[in-house]
This record gives sequence, C-alpha cells and structure tokens, in this order.
Amino acid sequence: MTNTQVTLIQIDNYGPWTVTPEPRREVDLQTLQSRLYADLSQLVGNRRGYVFFSRFDNMVAVTNGLSTEDHALVQESVGNRYPVTVSLSIAVSSSPVEALGTATEQLQDAGSAQDEGRTQILRGEPLGPGERSARDVQIAHFDVNNATGKYTDQLNEFDSFIRIEQGYAELMRYMRMAHDGLSFFVGGDNVIAVCPAMDRAAYQDAVDHVSETVDVELKVGVGRAESAQDAGMEAKHELECCREDGTDVELGWD
Amino acid sequence: MTNTQVTLIQIDNYGPWTVTPEPRREVDLQTLQSRLYADLSQLVGNRRGYVFFSRFDNMVAVTNGLSTEDHALVQESVGNRYPVTVSLSIAVSSSPVEALGTATEQLQDAGSAQDEGRTQILRGEPLGPGERSARDVQIAHFDVNNATGKYTDQLNEFDSFIRIEQGYAELMRYMRMAHDGLSFFVGGDNVIAVCPAMDRAAYQDAVDHVSETVDVELKVGVGRAESAQDAGMEAKHELECCREDGTDVELGWD
Amino acid sequence: MTNTQVTLIQIDNYGPWTVTPEPRREVDLQTLQSRLYADLSQLVGNRRGYVFFSRFDNMVAVTNGLSTEDHALVQESVGNRYPVTVSLSIAVSSSPVEALGTATEQLQDAGSAQDEGRTQILRGEPLGPGERSARDVQIAHFDVNNATGKYTDQLNEFDSFIRIEQGYAELMRYMRMAHDGLSFFVGGDNVIAVCPAMDRAAYQDAVDHVSETVDVELKVGVGRAESAQDAGMEAKHELECCREDGTDVELGWD
Amino acid sequence: MTNTQVTLIQIDNYGPWTVTPEPRREVDLQTLQSRLYADLSQLVGNRRGYVFFSRFDNMVAVTNGLSTEDHALVQESVGNRYPVTVSLSIAVSSSPVEALGTATEQLQDAGSAQDEGRTQILRGEPLGPGERSARDVQIAHFDVNNATGKYTDQLNEFDSFIRIEQGYAELMRYMRMAHDGLSFFVGGDNVIAVCPAMDRAAYQDAVDHVSETVDVELKVGVGRAESAQDAGMEAKHELECCREDGTDVELGWD
Repeated sequence: MTNTQVTLIQIDNYGPWTVTPEPRREVDLQTLQSRLYADLSQLVGNRRGYVFFSRFDNMVAVTNGLSTEDHALVQESVGNRYPVTVSLSIAVSSSPVEALGTATEQLQDAGSAQDEGRTQILRGEPLGPGERSARDVQIAHFDVNNATGKYTDQLNEFDSFIRIEQGYAELMRYMRMAHDGLSFFVGGDNVIAVCPAMDRAAYQDAVDHVSETVDVELKVGVGRAESAQDAGMEAKHELECCREDGTDVELGWD
Repeated sequence: MTNTQVTLIQIDNYGPWTVTPEPRREVDLQTLQSRLYADLSQLVGNRRGYVFFSRFDNMVAVTNGLSTEDHALVQESVGNRYPVTVSLSIAVSSSPVEALGTATEQLQDAGSAQDEGRTQILRGEPLGPGERSARDVQIAHFDVNNATGKYTDQLNEFDSFIRIEQGYAELMRYMRMAHDGLSFFVGGDNVIAVCPAMDRAAYQDAVDHVSETVDVELKVGVGRAESAQDAGMEAKHELECCREDGTDVELGWD
Repeated sequence: MTNTQVTLIQIDNYGPWTVTPEPRREVDLQTLQSRLYADLSQLVGNRRGYVFFSRFDNMVAVTNGLSTEDHALVQESVGNRYPVTVSLSIAVSSSPVEALGTATEQLQDAGSAQDEGRTQILRGEPLGPGERSARDVQIAHFDVNNATGKYTDQLNEFDSFIRIEQGYAELMRYMRMAHDGLSFFVGGDNVIAVCPAMDRAAYQDAVDHVSETVDVELKVGVGRAESAQDAGMEAKHELECCREDGTDVELGWD
Repeated sequence: MTNTQVTLIQIDNYGPWTVTPEPRREVDLQTLQSRLYADLSQLVGNRRGYVFFSRFDNMVAVTNGLSTEDHALVQESVGNRYPVTVSLSIAVSSSPVEALGTATEQLQDAGSAQDEGRTQILRGEPLGPGERSARDVQIAHFDVNNATGKYTDQLNEFDSFIRIEQGYAELMRYMRMAHDGLSFFVGGDNVIAVCPAMDRAAYQDAVDHVSETVDVELKVGVGRAESAQDAGMEAKHELECCREDGTDVELGWD
C-alpha cells in the first residue's frame, strides 16, 4: 500500500481580488499565478515534494516529508511576498483521491474559497517521522509516443495542442474513475499521475483505454519511493527505458 | 474583419534537453517553464500583447503592436537569462487559426522542434504601423457560472478540476472547429479565446453547445480593439456585466 | 549637452511595512526587493532604459524614451503583483544630479516616504517625442583592472569585496562632487555612471583620483546615444577596447 | 564561542560569459544576478540560512543546518534553471572571517574563478548534526537613526545614498578589522553583520567609531541562536527595542 500525503493549496478569496476594484490586467494575473506556482514548486521541491498547478488558484501537492512547520514556513513566505495569501490543507491516505477529498473537506469546513475572513488556514496532520516508509509514494510519468514527429512537426500548434489535450483529459478522467489516481498535465506531452499501488496490468489498461477511446498512444514509467521526488525521478528513468525498448509500461521495482 | 497577429513561441530542442545527460528534476523543469512563461507574459504584455501558456514548450501569443525588433529583443533577453532558447514565428490573418497555421508552417519549414541546429529562428512579417486598425483584435473571456458555489466549495478539488476541464476542452474544440477561434485555459474557471469577427449568435451557440454537451454553464464577455490588452480588458468588463445582469453573452460594441 | 531623463522609484511606506505587525523574515524581504528590482529592470529595459538598485527601497532609473503612460503601466503592474506599491517621479536635466534632485523634491513635496497615505504617486514630465536627440544619454562603464587575478583569486572574498567597495565608494563620491555624475555598483567589479557631457580628461581625472586616493586601478568605456541601453552598450564595447589595448579611457565618439 | 558555518557561492567563469561572444544587455545581466540571488535566498532560507548578495557574482551565506546534500541540491537546481553554474565552498569557524577565509582558499585551490574547466565545485565540511549548538550563530542588525527624516525626506536620493553608503562602508571595514565580523548592506538603511561572540561593549565601540569617523548614527540589535534565521529574527526584535527605548545597543540574551 502507498501512503500519500497530499496538500491542497488554495489562494484565498482570489476570484473577487482579481476584479477589485476593477478587473486587473490579465498579463499581471498570469504572471502572478505562474510565479506563485514556480515558488511553491521550489519551496516544496526543496524538501522532495511535488506541486501541480492544476487550476493555478487551487494547486495540489504531494508533500511526504514536509511537517506542519514546513508548511507554515511556505505559507508565511507567500504572505510576505505576494499581494494574496494561501490556505493549506493536508491529508494522508493509501488512495490519493481520498487524501485530496479529505484535504478539500477540511478546507471547505473552514469556510468558502471566497470568504474574505477565511485566510491562511493551515489544517490537517502530516505523517510523523516514524510513520514514513520507503514505498509511500507511487508516481507514474506518461508521455505521448513520438509527439514531436506526429504532432508538433506536422499539425498547426493548436491542433497539436488539442490532440495532446484529448489524450490528457481522457487519461485524467479514467485514472481517477478506474484507479483512484490523480493525473496532471505538466507541459509538452507529459502527464504525471499520483497513484495508489497500481500494478503493471492497471497501467496497461489505462494506456489501452486512452488509445482506444481517443486514439492517442501513450507510454508510462512508474517509480515508488519515500518521497515524490525520488519516486518521480525513478519514473522518468523508467520512461527512458520505454523509449529505448519500445515498451508501453516500465515499473521501477520490476 | 479582425486582423490578428499571432506569434508561435517554441522552446528549441526542449524535450531532449530535459533528459540530457540524465532526466532533470521535475520541480526545476516546472519552475523553468512557468517562469519563462511569466517573463514572456510581461515582456509581451508591456507592449499590450497576450501570451498563453498552452503546452509551455509551445506558447501562443497575440502580438498586434509588436514589431520584428520587439520580438528580437524578447528572444535575446530569454537567451541571456535561461539555459534554453526560443524560436518565434509571426503571422497575420483575419482568422486566428489560419494565422497560427501559417506561423507553425514557417517554423516547421525551418526544421524540427527537436533539431539541435535549429535555434533562435525569427520568421514572419508583423503588421506595419500603417496596417493596424482599432478593431483588429477580438477577445472573448469565458467563465463558469457560480464555479465556487457549485464546484470548489462542494466537490473534492480534483473533481472540480475535472468538471472545469471538461467544459474547457469542449469549448476549445468547438470554438476551433465551428468558429476558427483559439481558446486557452488561463486558470481558475476562466478561458480566453482569440476570435475572428464572431457575433452574438455565434457566442450564444458556443455557450449552448458546451451546456448541452458536457453540462457546464458558461458566460462570456467580448471586447474588440487595436491590441489584445485593450480587447481583453473590455471583455473582462463585459463579463462583469454578465455577472451583474445574469446574462450569457455581452459584447463591448453592442 | 546631455539631456538625461531620470526616474526616482520609491517603495511606499516600506520601512514600517517590513516590521508590521512583527518583523518579517529577512530572506523574504531580500527576495521581494531583488525580484522587484529584476522586474523593474526588465520593464524599463524593454523600452531601452536602465534601473539601478541603489538602496533597493529607493531605485534610480534612466528612462529616456519612456512616456508617462509607460511609467503608469509599470506602476500598475507592480501594484498588481507585489504586496507593496511604488511611487515614481520623473525629471529631465543636462545634469543627472540635478535631474535626480528635482525628481526627489517632487516626491518629497507629495509627502514623506513613510506617510501611509502617500502611495502610487506619479509626478514629473518626461521628454516629449520631439524633444529627444541622438546624444541625450552618456553612460560610463568602469571596472577594476585584473580584479580576478589581484583580488578574487588571491584574497578572502570579504577582503576582495572591501577593496572593490572602496574603489566604488570613492568613485561614487568623486564623480558626484567633481563631475555631477551618478555612479552605481552593478555587481562584480563593475560600476556604471550616468554622466553629463564629460570629456576624456574628466574621466582620466576620475580614474587617477581613485588610484591615488584608495589605490584601486580602474578603466572606463564611455558611450553616448538616444537611450540608456544604446549608450550603455557602446560603453561596454569601449571597455572591451580598453581591455585589449591596455588603455584607461575609451570614448565611443572619439 | 560561536560556530558559524559559512558558504562562499561563486558564479563560475562569470566575467568572460558576460562578454561572450559580445557584451550582453546590462538589464539582462542585472535581472539574472538579482533573480539568482533571490532564488538562493529562498533555497537557503527554507533551511533557516541567510545569503548576502555582496558582489552578486560572489555571494556569502550563513548555512548552519545545511548538509552537503542540501548544498548539492541548491547547486543542481541552479544548473537546471540558469545559463550559468555556481561553485560552493563550505567552512566552519568561531570567527566568521576565518571561516570565509578557509572557504575562499578551498575554492581558489580548485582553480581560478575564470577557469572554464572549474565548474560546479562543492568543497568543505558542514557541521554534523551532533556538532551544532543553540548558540552557534550571532547576528547583528544595524540601521541608521531616523534615516527617513534626516536623509530620504531631506536630501536628493543620491546624497542620501552616499551618506548611508559611507556609514555602511566604515562599519564594514571596522567590524572586519577590529572584530572579525562580516557586515553586509541589505537595502534601505540596514546592515546585517555575521559576528563572533562580541559583547555589548564591542557593539557600542563599533557604533561610536562610525559616528565619530563619518558622522552617521547607528543603532544595533543582536541575536544568537542555532541558525541564521533565528539569530537574525531575534536581532530584529532587539532593534525594535532600540527604536522604542532610544538605546544604541540591545542584546537578545541580556
């Protein structure tokens, strides 16, 4: 079994802020969001965690190894450097979807995302040092077979984008529904999924489903370790093995 | 008729770089991509253009008002500050899809996105000062009706994300197919579309299509001006009018 | 005669903010300050101007080519992305010191730097398009002869730093007093000075003064152009000439 | 006795890079340097250390609490995201000047700062977990009495800057010579010094020396703790006490 620690990161009261007193320049909002994400990526990544941008105003992180104090430091640092603040909610489960569900509920219980008075919430219990194991986090790294040759160098950029996006969207929905995994687009033709203890057959099933449903050919490398970074790096190496050997699925422990 | 100047921004030989000599830390790649996007957003935005992150390694910009020299400065500045370089390809058309098609072809003609020798390309002809008009750019700003109340404060964050994503994906495909528009997710529950000269009925058609197909209720404000920023700001104000009046579609010129 | 347009950039009420309600983490203040400077450097640099960090809470820019509207955009963009705001004051003179004096007075007239109510001031008149000439800005780029060989590779880093700093401090004071120039440390062993129409003898005098007073050997390249960037780039090329030819002073127009 | 762990951070072969093949745009160099500093400040600060920008191409950090592995991660992250790399050299001593001296020698032994082949050096031994104590780091935070009232709101900005700079330069030299401390300007009218076990009389001596020599009135708060952040935060609180009580020197342990 995995034991994934998930943190939901939510910008406080962000929607109203973006239009108060007048709508703010879009390029400034885009800059703010992407830099905030970059900063969180470094702050969490510095302790071997991963952050996914998802909707940018709501981000999902895998934070095995980060204590409540580490979370508080991230929250304080954002508050000191941005015109907005963030709330953080932490939960742990063998199912990433369930962990995120709990984290979301904890934050919803504290008030609406658009409640002015609900700011800088920090809820939930991280794993204690004695509760961690070397197999807590399972990460799968998917990419599209020959995306450059088939799409980027052939189609107009928007149609490439639509094709990649279709593959991603179907994978995201199927992984969540059939396998309790959380899948995130991370740029290019890459998707990273935070998974429960799925086996080879389960990954092959996901790859086949996407191929049959939307005709996008994927391959996937999978890693498992104590932290997101270690599991994710193993997954990347396995994906290189897929590339070299022409295989669909490679697992780090197999 | 609109006259949209589109620039395709492509990171040169990015895929191979991310795994050479070994796969690089994912958090560093995420940081690099999102900061590069933020920088481009400011550099182009400083001249009233918009950049969309799309796949991050390939970005799409609306650059009415930026000359070849302005593009060259952006390209040089990225080359001076990042471990990667970018190629830029500019095209103009009354159809945003067609403009992006031309821009893509110009870059493909110069070589593959993964050709080591094809770096820092700058192709295509921007609009001259005498060719611009006050109605060149049409921007539509969509959002989801009551997304916070219906999704963010109710569902777990991933299921909210899936719902928003479904609405976005359907809108993106339909706008491209039925109306030659380029739609981009910009965070939260927001989508910005670069459009040809669509009228009220066409936007109502898009909103209805998404509602019927994937059951996501959208509204949209539309602006038209000389630059992306001015058209986009008008669109935001119109979207505020939708919110106040409970309407689906508001046009700045109507 | 030169005609330098100087902008004083001041963070509003910054001192009190850094200790309210409690002193904020120093690393966050350092990050905020240096990123704000980096952003201003790009925003102003995108229009061929220069910004110097000086005290970080007060920065000095050479802004020939930037209109009031350009300044307003920079101010708005900072306000949208930082927890602090900035005031800007613009002045023009054949003497950089006098221009900065006027810019400072305009801001002081608007209220104290620590007056909570004095925020986002924008004062002063930039040069109109018809008032600019190809010789408005004179920039001198100084560096220390063989700094790496004599200091960096020989002394401990702090003693290298003290030596460089002594050279810089003496140059800064002398240039201001004897020649009405504004000199700024820009990292490494480099100092950039914004100058009135100084000639070769005046620069030789400054180099000699620093050598005699604090025993630090400098060389200097000087450029003159319509904008800070063009003058500054010419100065850099002239400095390369000093390096190749072993000369103390090289002027771009000579 | 203190036990300060100092890390010298040096950009590899930076001078030559800035002029190859041609001098690079100054605004890009300024942006690169200040963002690199900001990133290092966060990465080291996330583990309770401090980084000082000093010359930007050579930076000095107090890194008690950071292991060799932590340093390697910072080095790798910079290499993945910047067009330049950094070398790091770590040393520990009861005298900060001595620690920096050792760190500098270790790096000089590895080759010149402008040796193309000498890149990404990582040398020196950090304190082991069992070697740390609650009083290892002593930090003093100086500022200028009523700098806003006496300088910023009265003089032109450059003359304010000269006055502050004179105070800083004299303090820096005197602290190094008389007390083996390393003092760094950190913006505004603030100087932070990394100190050996100085007592109240020693700080009063430094304040008096600067007042007598260059007529700049300083006050100072001092903290001592296991890490730079904790000592530095205590120093800031003590400085607030000076402000409230009109005293020159306040020590956290007194």
